[in-house]
Amino acid sequence: MDKFLHEAIKEAQQGLDEGGIPIGSVLVYEGKVIGRGHNRRVQQGSAILHGEMDALENAGRLPAKIYKNAVLYTTLSPCPMCSGTILLYGIPKVIIGENKTFMGEEALLKSRGVNVEVINDTTCIEMMESFIANKPELWNEDIGEE
Amino acid sequence: MDKFLHEAIKEAQQGLDEGGIPIGSVLVYEGKVIGRGHNRRVQQGSAILHGEMDALENAGRLPAKIYKNAVLYTTLSPCPMCSGTILLYGIPKVIIGENKTFMGEEALLKSRGVNVEVINDTTCIEMMESFIANKPELWNEDIGEE
Repeated sequence: MDKFLHEAIKEAQQGLDEGGIPIGSVLVYEGKVIGRGHNRRVQQGSAILHGEMDALENAGRLPAKIYKNAVLYTTLSPCPMCSGTILLYGIPKVIIGENKTFMGEEALLKSRGVNVEVINDTTCIEMMESFIANKPELWNEDIGEE
Repeated sequence: MDKFLHEAIKEAQQGLDEGGIPIGSVLVYEGKVIGRGHNRRVQQGSAILHGEMDALENAGRLPAKIYKNAVLYTTLSPCPMCSGTILLYGIPKVIIGENKTFMGEEALLKSRGVNVEVINDTTCIEMMESFIANKPELWNEDIGEE
């Protein structure tokens, strides 16, 4: 497996171990992880810290040229918030663990020129399938569904 | 002036007083402010706490039905990140202080059925014009520009 997707999965697993939603992400620049994170809705009572947002926040304030040469890895297809953030910072490439359990704004990203690659990794799929089956209300809250 | 836009402007002014970027926002539900915030890039070294994001984060975890009956006020046209967040939570109405100094993703919001109202309030415009003239590099960083 891609070593950076593996790092994103480790973040997702850490989130699950904390009682949270198992979605993780890493921001990679020049072959190194410069930000990593996972969904913190439960852990921090957060409405905005999806995995991708947490990774970007943990990367800190960065010059535009770094984002524009970075790759964002995420275990799950990015929702509208996270996709909008990818567009804000002009991140040119997103590698997605899976989009079987949730389809995010991949079409919007592609329409704006973002290179989107979907792995559909079985670990990512099984982690989300199990979580959604166990905690459907929490999952619905995270994606703004009733 | 609309009293809620006035509250968003108070948040923007507070951000400016703190040495930050003067953009503020309030989330309104059933005629009451349930979340308020301002851009905290400088104050918290944050890459994701735009004014709208801070207001939503400060509102806390909410059921979908609240977002879907809320109104988001923001002093400036919402960037792709904040617009994506509006779409994630299905916030049906956004009232924007101004879009003269920055045009966000209003077209995307409208294409998804969001009711977008732009006031072009002179206080909002002057606050951003002055800020952008004084700190162009900080402003560019906030919108992912070189």
